[in-house]
Amino acid sequence: MAKIKFVPYNKEIEVQQGENLLEVARKAEIFIDAPCNGNSVCGKCKVKIIEGKVSAEKDRHISDDEWNEGYVLACSSSVIGDITVEIPSNASASMHNMKIEALSGERENKIFEKAKRQILDKGMEFKTYVKKDYVKLDLPTLNDNISDFERIKRHLRNELGYNQVFCRLPMLRKIPPILREANFNITITHIPRGQGKTTIINIEKGDTTNRLYGVALDIGTTSVAACLVDLYGGKLVAKASSGNAQIKYGADVINRIMYSTKKNGLHELNHAVIQETINPILREMCEDSGIDRDEIVSLIVAGNTTMSHLFLGIYPDFLRMEPYIPAFVKPPFIKASELGVEVNPETFVYLAPCVASYVGGDITAGVLSSGMWDVDENVLFIDLGTNGEIVFGNKEFLMTCACSAGPAFEGGEISCGMRAANGAIEKINIDKENYDPEVTVIGNDKPSGICGSGIIDLICEMMLSGIIDRKGKIVKNLNTNRIRFDEHGIGEYILVFKEEYNLEKNITITEVDIDNFIRAKAAIYSGITTLLNNLGMDFSMIDKIYIAGGIGNSLDIGNSVKIGMLPDIESSKIEYVGNSSLMGCYLTLMSEDARHKLEEVSNSMTYVELSVEPGYMDEFVSACFLPHTDIEKFPTVKELLSK
Amino acid sequence: MAKIKFVPYNKEIEVQQGENLLEVARKAEIFIDAPCNGNSVCGKCKVKIIEGKVSAEKDRHISDDEWNEGYVLACSSSVIGDITVEIPSNASASMHNMKIEALSGERENKIFEKAKRQILDKGMEFKTYVKKDYVKLDLPTLNDNISDFERIKRHLRNELGYNQVFCRLPMLRKIPPILREANFNITITHIPRGQGKTTIINIEKGDTTNRLYGVALDIGTTSVAACLVDLYGGKLVAKASSGNAQIKYGADVINRIMYSTKKNGLHELNHAVIQETINPILREMCEDSGIDRDEIVSLIVAGNTTMSHLFLGIYPDFLRMEPYIPAFVKPPFIKASELGVEVNPETFVYLAPCVASYVGGDITAGVLSSGMWDVDENVLFIDLGTNGEIVFGNKEFLMTCACSAGPAFEGGEISCGMRAANGAIEKINIDKENYDPEVTVIGNDKPSGICGSGIIDLICEMMLSGIIDRKGKIVKNLNTNRIRFDEHGIGEYILVFKEEYNLEKNITITEVDIDNFIRAKAAIYSGITTLLNNLGMDFSMIDKIYIAGGIGNSLDIGNSVKIGMLPDIESSKIEYVGNSSLMGCYLTLMSEDARHKLEEVSNSMTYVELSVEPGYMDEFVSACFLPHTDIEKFPTVKELLSK
Repeated sequence: MAKIKFVPYNKEIEVQQGENLLEVARKAEIFIDAPCNGNSVCGKCKVKIIEGKVSAEKDRHISDDEWNEGYVLACSSSVIGDITVEIPSNASASMHNMKIEALSGERENKIFEKAKRQILDKGMEFKTYVKKDYVKLDLPTLNDNISDFERIKRHLRNELGYNQVFCRLPMLRKIPPILREANFNITITHIPRGQGKTTIINIEKGDTTNRLYGVALDIGTTSVAACLVDLYGGKLVAKASSGNAQIKYGADVINRIMYSTKKNGLHELNHAVIQETINPILREMCEDSGIDRDEIVSLIVAGNTTMSHLFLGIYPDFLRMEPYIPAFVKPPFIKASELGVEVNPETFVYLAPCVASYVGGDITAGVLSSGMWDVDENVLFIDLGTNGEIVFGNKEFLMTCACSAGPAFEGGEISCGMRAANGAIEKINIDKENYDPEVTVIGNDKPSGICGSGIIDLICEMMLSGIIDRKGKIVKNLNTNRIRFDEHGIGEYILVFKEEYNLEKNITITEVDIDNFIRAKAAIYSGITTLLNNLGMDFSMIDKIYIAGGIGNSLDIGNSVKIGMLPDIESSKIEYVGNSSLMGCYLTLMSEDARHKLEEVSNSMTYVELSVEPGYMDEFVSACFLPHTDIEKFPTVKELLSK
Repeated sequence: MAKIKFVPYNKEIEVQQGENLLEVARKAEIFIDAPCNGNSVCGKCKVKIIEGKVSAEKDRHISDDEWNEGYVLACSSSVIGDITVEIPSNASASMHNMKIEALSGERENKIFEKAKRQILDKGMEFKTYVKKDYVKLDLPTLNDNISDFERIKRHLRNELGYNQVFCRLPMLRKIPPILREANFNITITHIPRGQGKTTIINIEKGDTTNRLYGVALDIGTTSVAACLVDLYGGKLVAKASSGNAQIKYGADVINRIMYSTKKNGLHELNHAVIQETINPILREMCEDSGIDRDEIVSLIVAGNTTMSHLFLGIYPDFLRMEPYIPAFVKPPFIKASELGVEVNPETFVYLAPCVASYVGGDITAGVLSSGMWDVDENVLFIDLGTNGEIVFGNKEFLMTCACSAGPAFEGGEISCGMRAANGAIEKINIDKENYDPEVTVIGNDKPSGICGSGIIDLICEMMLSGIIDRKGKIVKNLNTNRIRFDEHGIGEYILVFKEEYNLEKNITITEVDIDNFIRAKAAIYSGITTLLNNLGMDFSMIDKIYIAGGIGNSLDIGNSVKIGMLPDIESSKIEYVGNSSLMGCYLTLMSEDARHKLEEVSNSMTYVELSVEPGYMDEFVSACFLPHTDIEKFPTVKELLSK
């Protein structure tokens, strides 16, 4: 046995010799950022051994200096004796310092107002499917001694016209005491479903008909966001968001799926998203608003197909293996208590339907909120989160595909990449004369890394200022101390010198990072072209592009075109729409008609599997340039580069 | 603190001084028979203090000799220091030595055959509502990549015509791995419910269509009995029964209800019946038959209204308080997993509907199995268990009432009374010359008490031999050493001298016991007359009487008439039908038509609340004689007594 001590957490654990250090940290409940989930690929799980020794190999992610100081990758180190391990702050996967804007503070009710008008304009009813009724039951007597449940059913039948009333056992258990406490005057929360049928999901003492709440919840691979909404009128009551605690098991869906196949892995992933992420968010919103969890009686959830599986605790491994089969696309009826989600236990949890293994409920919900299912124009909807999904169509048809873009848009697989949290560099300009950058940092904080929108700016600016060529290679012999090449000849550009902010190391972008990002943007671009080719269409037929997803508010549309991620069409046709998945959940929460529309939209979406699409690989390879091998496709960039 | 040691169990427990000894025993998980639940009424919880002292009062249930030997009532003793307590074997509420015949070994399949013919004769289908189908799904490919659940639904729709297929989350969780293990050849267990709808409740690898099992379960206040049945054809596969472990919290429903109001009481009662009674029975049947619990996919349960509430974990206190309101009579849809019953977790648990607080599912199931709902003749159905319930009617009408008979028919509230288990005296003849009895003991064992049928025989024989008068008082100055009177002048008849079998005490019946029993039989008789009076009918209009319930197989119909429990009609019209509740469950299990009929029967039963019925009290008081104040109502007895 060996004693492992972690600083600065002051945690100690005894383990067997030979155990993997990343696993040991997990056992000690210290979560080290490991996007590649222990495959020695990302180099993020760098830790410092400050006492004792481990068995580790020097790796390309560890510099000579670092190696001498005791740095190792936790994922490729094994315990050989007592050690003290220091976890650098940038390696910690702590998520609670990360606040993602669900919908910006000032504008959400305006956005909700707009959504309401949109629903009404489309001839749909702005009315939730949950209903409250205050009922005064006849008091029982010896001559009218029917059972409590029959008494409730009789009242609902005679006074409100519901001739088939259902409830589940936990509700029945509540009935006898509550009726006596309330002197048979109660408020019944129920879900009518046509033909005189209804299901009781809550019973409260007295008249509580003025309080009816629901939650819209978007489960992203990286972050989770929620709104608590007054179901009368649809006003926002509270909002909250946080990182998805599953991140400690891997940054992207593939790594999560692989983790799920480990012993107890599925349970841990499910626990991480529900108990460690969603429930704290729900508690925070309840505290902020003074609403009791039992008053939340509707819950609409959207997530990609993997997130949907993990949320329900369903084994997802077949999603990643050809022929890529989900367990479900529309789940059956589920109660909150079955999942342990802290709203009213009888609440019906509605999950936005998925389309395929890599086009999930976040996309169908996003398409719903985009309104593209109701227009004549051709709309291209792109979700740029972890991976990227594309939908193209209008009220006549909807085609969709998934691009293997990986987590680069959210800072993954980039050496100094990070999520769009405090300390992330989100905007960058480079002086064309001296190659010095000007950066904007989220929270005006000391910079600690670069997020997706920052990387787009950086690559675009490096291209336009001539630091990199169109293959993404750094040009040699430029007159600046910001450019260096290592012993293997791999170049890097130093965005922030560590001395400027007293950082542990420089914030840089390497040719490897640039290459990774180019592959990500190429995946999106080639996805778009392949989808259009499949339909015999071209970019000129695109009337509108909506960009959604976790890439963040600071996304520079122009730069996204310039690096060749988006087609070179008029900027005014391209719009960033934020978290469209959450917005789709809100619409579904507030309008039963919208929920039916969501079902319809998801049924009508045709999935195109890019990997079997002829021409896709050629399109992808051609797009692995800045902006593209064929510059003629990007006249705007051609003009800028020729200056 | 004080140390309490229990022998012969060799259990020790430390408790606070002042604690009640009955409670202390429960804490130590030693369950002392306490039918009156600690109210010092029944005298059954007699224990012997063999070391140390308790604070206790001498009580009428403790003789001088017993008091000197250290006997006390546990329920009225408090701990004052370290003690060793001996639990006499007859005070132990251990139930596993008690085997109640569910359906006699040789004849059950004959009975089932008869039941099947009965169902078919009445034009009903002998077909359970659970169905198995073996399906070979198309293997998924890149071109046919719909989800697992959609694939199952597509097959059921296209091949079997089910266009709406439901399942619950735990089933969905099972699907992905099982499909791959089975190479997509699976057997689906489902519950079709008309209009192309069906609900999947189990999925198994390969073809298991030849195995389909269900359980019929009768939950009595005193004992629980079950049959495991092959749902193809209806043959018995295994049977088991045991005492209801709730007995440790009180012998009758009133004491159970009172216990449920204690802290954690409802949970303990629910746990006792499910975890300590039903699950061991199910495990025993599975072991006996080699059937896996997951193969049991149908469960039909009947119990009185209190048992039904406690089985579901529903607070029953309002059943015993005017105006006597049950929480439900027909419970909603319940899954086995919600209750923790060890059959397939997705099994739909069907509970026979109740009619009122004291006419439960055991009665509706019994009425179903009696067939009285389909005949022209007037049938009187009497259930003699703990309490007694009566139904009168035919295919035109069904009237029902409950009699406050208490637990006397099952040996309760009788000093030497016991359940119909091994050691119970079940048949008695008394020699009219010398007043000596001849007894038959269940199991041909050493006698240890008298069960319900024995008490009926005993009282009848004592009456006919002149030992007691028509008020139930023991005649003085008879020439026998079997009759004694105590210091208060209360007489007793010694049925078995302790010396004969080396018992701890004589087996006797006292005038108090006789009085208790007369009140019980009077409750039944007056219930019958009141019900008939209510309809303007009399005994001559009764074409048939069925006696059901726990009173036991040895019930002497003639003697039951002679003591004035049943009306004096031709013996040939009266028939003991055994556990009709279990039989009703079997029919419901085997025929969906029978289940619909059960619903219909329960809806059509009119409940008469005896306590508000004019004339009931007069009828009751008149019946508190042997056989009745008006001997003219019992010509048979009049003739015998005049001999």
